[in-house]
Amino acid sequence: MVMQNKNYIGIDFGGTNIKIGCFSANLKLLWKTSIPTNAQMGPDAVIDRIADVIKEMASKKNTPLETIKAVGIGTPGPAKYSDGVLIRCANLPKFINVPISRMLWEKLGKPVILENDANTACFGEFVAGAGKNIKNMVFFTLGTGIGAGIISDGKLLQGSSGNAAELGHMIVNVNGRLCACGQKGCVEVYASASNTAKRATEAIAAGAGSNLKAVLEKNGQITCKDVYDHLAEGDKLAKKITDETAEVLGVLCVNALHCTEPEKIVFAGGMIGAGKPLLDRIKYYFKQHVWKLKQEDDIEICFATLGEDAGIIGAAALAKDL
Amino acid sequence: MVMQNKNYIGIDFGGTNIKIGCFSANLKLLWKTSIPTNAQMGPDAVIDRIADVIKEMASKKNTPLETIKAVGIGTPGPAKYSDGVLIRCANLPKFINVPISRMLWEKLGKPVILENDANTACFGEFVAGAGKNIKNMVFFTLGTGIGAGIISDGKLLQGSSGNAAELGHMIVNVNGRLCACGQKGCVEVYASASNTAKRATEAIAAGAGSNLKAVLEKNGQITCKDVYDHLAEGDKLAKKITDETAEVLGVLCVNALHCTEPEKIVFAGGMIGAGKPLLDRIKYYFKQHVWKLKQEDDIEICFATLGEDAGIIGAAALAKDL
Repeated sequence: MVMQNKNYIGIDFGGTNIKIGCFSANLKLLWKTSIPTNAQMGPDAVIDRIADVIKEMASKKNTPLETIKAVGIGTPGPAKYSDGVLIRCANLPKFINVPISRMLWEKLGKPVILENDANTACFGEFVAGAGKNIKNMVFFTLGTGIGAGIISDGKLLQGSSGNAAELGHMIVNVNGRLCACGQKGCVEVYASASNTAKRATEAIAAGAGSNLKAVLEKNGQITCKDVYDHLAEGDKLAKKITDETAEVLGVLCVNALHCTEPEKIVFAGGMIGAGKPLLDRIKYYFKQHVWKLKQEDDIEICFATLGEDAGIIGAAALAKDL
Repeated sequence: MVMQNKNYIGIDFGGTNIKIGCFSANLKLLWKTSIPTNAQMGPDAVIDRIADVIKEMASKKNTPLETIKAVGIGTPGPAKYSDGVLIRCANLPKFINVPISRMLWEKLGKPVILENDANTACFGEFVAGAGKNIKNMVFFTLGTGIGAGIISDGKLLQGSSGNAAELGHMIVNVNGRLCACGQKGCVEVYASASNTAKRATEAIAAGAGSNLKAVLEKNGQITCKDVYDHLAEGDKLAKKITDETAEVLGVLCVNALHCTEPEKIVFAGGMIGAGKPLLDRIKYYFKQHVWKLKQEDDIEICFATLGEDAGIIGAAALAKDL
């Protein structure tokens, strides 16, 4: 039994599931579990369940509560991270101004650090994944939205209230397509997984010929995975849609380079399942769009390596740094 | 006579002039001077002259060389800043791979820190100007090009080789107007002083009616100052051109917010001579373009306060932090 007070809990709090992991001081995974979020139960009930699950697992897995030194939790934003308060979240309608760090501390008696979920995943990749042994990294997670995190000189870049690194909402087309965030021409409104699928659907509605039309008719929708599956089969519309997504992501890499000059840009999230064809296109468009003033061959654009565990590892690593 | 070894030299190395200032440990200006760059003389001769001027002024102004602890120098990039080597610069054609820090150290016997000139001006405003008492700031200088600097958590953000914060080269229109840097649709290609003037000239060539046409015919060119002078007189084209510049700068502020979440965004450079009409328009377009997910009323967009001395103050302050 590991009895020293030196383990760390990492929580990845999503709209659908809550992942919880327990890690040793050297970030070895001791146990992990996942529960449905059931956000409709409201903040009190959800946070009670998180605390109960941690207590139950801690006891069952021989890492009793006394061995847990601190807890890290990643949630969607925006939040007042320094105060541990979740302001609001699209996927968690009942979670408004929830002092999540204090509530968990009251249940567990451990210090709690709240961080943006893209930042926790970024920090996980930085300490244990694609970003090991570098000091400057930019991280993107391509899903329904585009999350981002920045490591600058070995540290997570926070900004004045912890809401830095919303790079998916950088505008790449002034007065372009309208994003759900209220801005026009953001990266996210073109290149997230859901918007990639949406652009394909719109193209078919506008009369584009594609085998994706049959998918739309059969399933009532097109997913980003459908687009990449059809890309592999040589479908022309799938190629066009993928190129547009990759071009915007390539430009995003140019802009990220000009912001914090990372050594690596790391992509994560469901969309990286598209594999090498997507990565190669992003690299191609980066080279097409980046300036010629200075060679930028040193920057590496790659995929994340930790998969879904990045969030709990990063949250635990942040708890360790508390 | 100030004899303790505690003064600092700040150098602002431009394509036309080299400004040199000597500052006490609390960054009080002891003396300053300016010499023509005469870049055509080549690196050896230019750096010899800088060293000679410093020695001469130090002796004349009762701050003998023994009292100088370190030297900071700001130059246009790109450079290998950590090594003190200027790689190349559009306005200094003979300066290719010049080890400027080592050369100055050999002449003066003092440690030398090399930094991007926009970064030194940014740091100057941060320690002694518009950025006093905050921890996160983004700085833009609007001139021939658009330089930028980022202060994150109280420190100048450097990036992996000191070339971070090239925010003027963020792309805001994928495949937009071609910039001198080789990219398309950069902020700089729309909103720098020279490109603002250029867009006015192009509009007149394309047939737009404006009193600026007489200026073009008389002087053979239109300057950015001409555009703002005519804005004050109610010229319609000047208003259109100013609005376009301000809109791109407003979007630049949105993107800067989403990168490092500063408390303040500070504009400097010749173009801020346009005054309140320009600043008000930038603020207007920022509000128009920024997301609605979260109130962003806390961020302040303002002008720099130190004028042309920001560069030498910042370079001296960086030398002090060595």
